[in-house]
Amino acid sequence: MTTTKRKLDHINICLNEGVESSYTGFGDVTFIHNPLPEVHYDEIDMEVNFLGKKLKAPFLIASMTGGHPETYEINKNLAIAVENAGIGMGVGSQRAGIEDESVADTFAVVREHAPNAFIYANIGLPQLIEKGVEYAEKAVEMIDADALAIHLNFLQEIVQPEGDRNAEGGFSIIRDVASELKVPVMIKETGAGIPREIAFSVREAGVKAIDIGGKGGTSWSGVEVYRIADELNRDVARDFWDWGIPTAFSIVDCHDVLPVVATGGIRNGIDAAKAIALGAKIASSALPFLKPAKYSVEDVERKIRYFLDGLKKVLFLTGCTHVYDLHKTKIFVSGLLKEWIEFRELDYLELVRRRFHDF
Amino acid sequence: MTTTKRKLDHINICLNEGVESSYTGFGDVTFIHNPLPEVHYDEIDMEVNFLGKKLKAPFLIASMTGGHPETYEINKNLAIAVENAGIGMGVGSQRAGIEDESVADTFAVVREHAPNAFIYANIGLPQLIEKGVEYAEKAVEMIDADALAIHLNFLQEIVQPEGDRNAEGGFSIIRDVASELKVPVMIKETGAGIPREIAFSVREAGVKAIDIGGKGGTSWSGVEVYRIADELNRDVARDFWDWGIPTAFSIVDCHDVLPVVATGGIRNGIDAAKAIALGAKIASSALPFLKPAKYSVEDVERKIRYFLDGLKKVLFLTGCTHVYDLHKTKIFVSGLLKEWIEFRELDYLELVRRRFHDF
Amino acid sequence: MTTTKRKLDHINICLNEGVESSYTGFGDVTFIHNPLPEVHYDEIDMEVNFLGKKLKAPFLIASMTGGHPETYEINKNLAIAVENAGIGMGVGSQRAGIEDESVADTFAVVREHAPNAFIYANIGLPQLIEKGVEYAEKAVEMIDADALAIHLNFLQEIVQPEGDRNAEGGFSIIRDVASELKVPVMIKETGAGIPREIAFSVREAGVKAIDIGGKGGTSWSGVEVYRIADELNRDVARDFWDWGIPTAFSIVDCHDVLPVVATGGIRNGIDAAKAIALGAKIASSALPFLKPAKYSVEDVERKIRYFLDGLKKVLFLTGCTHVYDLHKTKIFVSGLLKEWIEFRELDYLELVRRRFHDF
Amino acid sequence: MTTTKRKLDHINICLNEGVESSYTGFGDVTFIHNPLPEVHYDEIDMEVNFLGKKLKAPFLIASMTGGHPETYEINKNLAIAVENAGIGMGVGSQRAGIEDESVADTFAVVREHAPNAFIYANIGLPQLIEKGVEYAEKAVEMIDADALAIHLNFLQEIVQPEGDRNAEGGFSIIRDVASELKVPVMIKETGAGIPREIAFSVREAGVKAIDIGGKGGTSWSGVEVYRIADELNRDVARDFWDWGIPTAFSIVDCHDVLPVVATGGIRNGIDAAKAIALGAKIASSALPFLKPAKYSVEDVERKIRYFLDGLKKVLFLTGCTHVYDLHKTKIFVSGLLKEWIEFRELDYLELVRRRFHDF
Ligand SMILES: Cc1cc2nc3c(=O)[nH]c(=O)nc-3n(C[C@H](O)[C@H](O)[C@H](O)COP(=O)(O)O)c2cc1C
Ligand SMILES: Cc1cc2nc3c(=O)[nH]c(=O)nc-3n(C[C@H](O)[C@H](O)[C@H](O)COP(=O)(O)O)c2cc1C
Ligand SMILES: Cc1cc2nc3c(=O)[nH]c(=O)nc-3n(C[C@H](O)[C@H](O)[C@H](O)COP(=O)(O)O)c2cc1C
Ligand SMILES: Cc1cc2nc3c(=O)[nH]c(=O)nc-3n(C[C@H](O)[C@H](O)[C@H](O)COP(=O)(O)O)c2cc1C
Repeated sequence: MTTTKRKLDHINICLNEGVESSYTGFGDVTFIHNPLPEVHYDEIDMEVNFLGKKLKAPFLIASMTGGHPETYEINKNLAIAVENAGIGMGVGSQRAGIEDESVADTFAVVREHAPNAFIYANIGLPQLIEKGVEYAEKAVEMIDADALAIHLNFLQEIVQPEGDRNAEGGFSIIRDVASELKVPVMIKETGAGIPREIAFSVREAGVKAIDIGGKGGTSWSGVEVYRIADELNRDVARDFWDWGIPTAFSIVDCHDVLPVVATGGIRNGIDAAKAIALGAKIASSALPFLKPAKYSVEDVERKIRYFLDGLKKVLFLTGCTHVYDLHKTKIFVSGLLKEWIEFRELDYLELVRRRFHDF
Repeated sequence: MTTTKRKLDHINICLNEGVESSYTGFGDVTFIHNPLPEVHYDEIDMEVNFLGKKLKAPFLIASMTGGHPETYEINKNLAIAVENAGIGMGVGSQRAGIEDESVADTFAVVREHAPNAFIYANIGLPQLIEKGVEYAEKAVEMIDADALAIHLNFLQEIVQPEGDRNAEGGFSIIRDVASELKVPVMIKETGAGIPREIAFSVREAGVKAIDIGGKGGTSWSGVEVYRIADELNRDVARDFWDWGIPTAFSIVDCHDVLPVVATGGIRNGIDAAKAIALGAKIASSALPFLKPAKYSVEDVERKIRYFLDGLKKVLFLTGCTHVYDLHKTKIFVSGLLKEWIEFRELDYLELVRRRFHDF
Repeated sequence: MTTTKRKLDHINICLNEGVESSYTGFGDVTFIHNPLPEVHYDEIDMEVNFLGKKLKAPFLIASMTGGHPETYEINKNLAIAVENAGIGMGVGSQRAGIEDESVADTFAVVREHAPNAFIYANIGLPQLIEKGVEYAEKAVEMIDADALAIHLNFLQEIVQPEGDRNAEGGFSIIRDVASELKVPVMIKETGAGIPREIAFSVREAGVKAIDIGGKGGTSWSGVEVYRIADELNRDVARDFWDWGIPTAFSIVDCHDVLPVVATGGIRNGIDAAKAIALGAKIASSALPFLKPAKYSVEDVERKIRYFLDGLKKVLFLTGCTHVYDLHKTKIFVSGLLKEWIEFRELDYLELVRRRFHDF
Repeated sequence: MTTTKRKLDHINICLNEGVESSYTGFGDVTFIHNPLPEVHYDEIDMEVNFLGKKLKAPFLIASMTGGHPETYEINKNLAIAVENAGIGMGVGSQRAGIEDESVADTFAVVREHAPNAFIYANIGLPQLIEKGVEYAEKAVEMIDADALAIHLNFLQEIVQPEGDRNAEGGFSIIRDVASELKVPVMIKETGAGIPREIAFSVREAGVKAIDIGGKGGTSWSGVEVYRIADELNRDVARDFWDWGIPTAFSIVDCHDVLPVVATGGIRNGIDAAKAIALGAKIASSALPFLKPAKYSVEDVERKIRYFLDGLKKVLFLTGCTHVYDLHKTKIFVSGLLKEWIEFRELDYLELVRRRFHDF
């Protein structure tokens, strides 16, 4: 099976089947309502800088697609909406575009229609291990990217019968890319999360940000269950459906090590706000944007507004005038997430009992 | 849409749809049964003073309505029952009555039929911010009120497309009203709760009591879901259905700062007793009284008796001779509520292991 | 309604309706299996002494009935089975038998058919408050009892429209009865449990044992729900269905103050073993014996065997040669019961990490 | 009923009925995903030594059958698959083969078809208590075993009406067998678990390994429920369905006392990995292999591959190059299992916060 055909399968499965895993950890986070917020809703400021670019709100549509003619429209719709909203987006893995120039336009269309937006390139670590720094450079050039996300998706690789099974040399190629590339490099999981230890080691390697891609949203072992023909392999893939570090756990783990982008089960503006309150710089979401992008620019725009409206309402109701005031707002953390924080020997009090904004 | 029309919509939704949110926190509170209570049931005393008036029991029917001709009967039925029972009540937001004198009688009917009862006026903070102290004075005069409740309902405002979005100046207008009004001023949430920090700051401002209006009963974002035409706005409102500080959490937060009235999911006498045991001075309930008030005085009276009978039975079974002995009775607190108390750095032992009455 | 008629109603409701409440606390107790018990099953000894009499096993059928001609057979069947098994039983409240001599035989039949068994008399505290020590003496004489249980059932009284509402003087009449009666006096709840504080105070009063009658089995507010005609009263009774101190909590509370008999939701031999492991001297059960007693002696005997077989198997599987070795056997306590132990400032370690038998 | 007939009943019940109990404790264990594992999947090494033999992976098919002509094929299929996979297996209790030489071949077939595999003999402690060391020697000879498992199954014996009820002398016969036998001796539970105290005492007795046979998989009291004719006995057996120490608890208890084999509810490679991560040397499973073994060698081989593939994928995704690196990999332990570790006064930190491999 070719890469492009596989990519199309993935899109169709994500459009039509249940592919999500359970428990992001956000259910263990409660905001403390401020009934007297002393804020004018219309003056709330969500603008932030991320890796050198300005975003009207700390929100990105996460890497999804490209590489097959049918994905051209999807990326175009996403790009226009993102440009209009003043946010940013990633493209899907550019391997197909590098290996087959005829589909490179399905990626390039993004920059074409989003000349000013923050756009990040995307390439898998297994490909870099095999092909070297050059692949990374090509990916960035293809879309004139503001940054490159190297995705780490060994869970998916390992459950795919045809998947890449070699992770050796990953760390050193990340270091090479980080030092040679002209744009900043992020690492990005795709649904199994990134632990604190890895955050520290990639910071050493020159990585500038982490998309923690945590468990609780799209499950790539789940997606593969629909594709695997052999029953035994399918059963094993199913056992790994819920494998990984929940999104909230992973944010907590990495937030004080490198700037964190949070994907994985962020499904509305309250989730986005929780991700930021736990320490992320950017909230980001993939799956909810796939269907809208199949339809129209307007549908994508509505979905963006849905997320940003919810986020802004949280700001208002917690008395924040700027979105990063969430970093100083108290939150109530309980249950498993609290157990995790204790297990990690992080400072629970520092994490949750921060100064209540404006009091 | 006019204010009066909107108010009628609210009543009808509350009468006919499911509008409650989940988890008040009362499920985490257990009374310690006293099998040998040394009390005569008929001699149990529930009389209390609240803001200068005597109540035969620490129970109020919370602010609901007024402002549309159809609400006249509702308020009249409530008023007669309340007068007979020797308790008190609030009226709904008086904005409509102030802006349109022709409906002022739908509020004034309360004092007419409850000449001796404790009656509190009600006006929204957004209106005060816009219109100033005069509005507060008019509200009090309209019903010859014993107190004024300024309601804080920014959750509802913010999910309503037509809602008020400015909370700036809230604190200072509260201070002005508190210093200029002749009756005591309370602040009152309407279902999202009031945190400890706000309790401290409004005490500074001269506020005399707090109706914490916590989460777990009527949800105003929930009510709005039934009214919002636009799908996107409706979806956002639905995400906020369960927003807020659970009633029990909010009582615990405010109980030692100012006298607390507790509304939000108090559905029977045991809930009322738990609210008081956690530190509230007054238990209060809105939604359960709406349907009875549509029918008759007798129905309201039966519902009052239902609450007070349950409350009195708790007193008997915990060996209390006066309702405020509940403040000294041990309670067993567990689960999330206990985690909250620890999070707030309140003294758990002081809160729960109080002297067991009569031993 | 006469006392005898009411008693018959109770029996019929208990036979035909769901009357149990939830959560005894036993689910939070786990025995630690001993795979190498070094015990011969047939040599396990369950014989104990209780209030001066020998019991072949620490198990009693708890107070249920008498007072109406139809209950004669029930008590007779229970008595024969109990005599044969070498255990003991209580009779139901003897008020009816005292007030109407014509039904005294429905109680006396017990001693007639169980000449050697441990039999305890039963009278309600409300009756003693009203009628004095003489009532207690009559109850004991009527059945030549080995002990008297004074039952405390104010929960039931208070939800019954016709119930007794005076608990004043309870403590002093208990003291009088305890000092004047020739047989030992127990106090006994009927499903709402007895807290530690009361255990201490009745010990002062001369009481010799406590049947803690905890929550989690038969609920007397639940039973009354089926009898109350008026909707309001019924609704209030239903709110109190789950009122009370769970059986396991109450055992833990009282076990080191006075000898404890445990009733309330003990439904098999494992529950009985847990009750004893938590510190009770005797396990006891009412509701499961009602239906068998309506049928035959054999049915009661089978049910007794069901409880004792289960209990003996626990002894074997935890390496106990005598039933009270359970008092020294480690148990794992978790969840709410553990929170209760901490709340009560009892020594968790002493309660659960006792010497493991035979190691 | 003869032993052989009973054994056949057991097989049929296990093939056709639900016989498992709930909660192994594995649900309270979470691996920490390593998104950058620096491992080549194909170079992961699962080879281990166990009691003097080499295993290609730390996995055994647990004792199940033999003793009836119909079981010949089952054991043959298991043996061939096990030999091919380079792992090992146990045979079922050899009592029948010792007492009736005509069925000895149903056991001997195993060694015949698995000349090199690790094979352990199996005999029940009750039989040894009765018959002495000779029985153990015969069992080992019959299959030229590498080790002998003495199974402790008093839960099953005690709920069987015809079961053995004497556990006295168990410890001393274990000591005798351990000192006289030429092969190492293990003790093995069959589904109710082994606590720490017993691990220490059998180590004293010369035992070399423990199959903890914990609760959460096949329940032998459960199996007996389907066989017991008498209702009373059946009801008692049912009460004990969930009796025992959960597998994860028992591993934690014994892991630092003797080498642990873990059976009881291990249903896939992730469970196997959790067992090892908690400290076991070998993961092992019975019930999932019964149906495949009824069909063919290939079905057994597929099932083995299913377990080993899952296990290897966990190694990859946690950055382990050898299966015992799991012993040094951090795991997140929460819930009841964490409460158990605290109850046992084991060092939680040492158990869970081990050095993260490769960082
Ligand atoms: C259809 C689809 C395709 C994706 N393709 C990629 C990809 O090529 N590269 C990548 O880094 N992540 C990819 N992802 C992962 C997402 O970027 C994101 O990390 C993950 O889905 C979790 O977020 P979600 O729960 O909001 O979907 C894809 C996700 C989806 C739904
Ligand atoms: C129909 C209805 C109308 C209400 N209107 C007002 C109002 O005008 N002003 C106010 O302060 N609260 C208002 N409330 C809120 C209640 O006073 C109360 O704080 C809240 O409903 C929580 O209590 P509950 O769960 O017992 O209903 C209203 C509640 C209901 C059910
Ligand atoms: C039908 C019935 C009648 C009872 N009558 C009495 C009684 O007269 N006096 C008393 O002390 N307890 C009485 N009880 C309470 C029991 O003795 C026992 O404390 C309670 O039912 C809890 O145990 P259980 O859950 O095993 O039923 C009665 C219980 C039942 C089921
Ligand atoms: C059909 C069957 C027969 C078994 N027979 C024996 C036996 O003879 N001896 C023994 O030690 N264990 C025996 N066991 C127990 C298993 O070895 C194992 O300890 C237990 O079933 C728990 O593992 P599981 O949940 O994977 O089945 C048997 C299990 C099954 C399912």
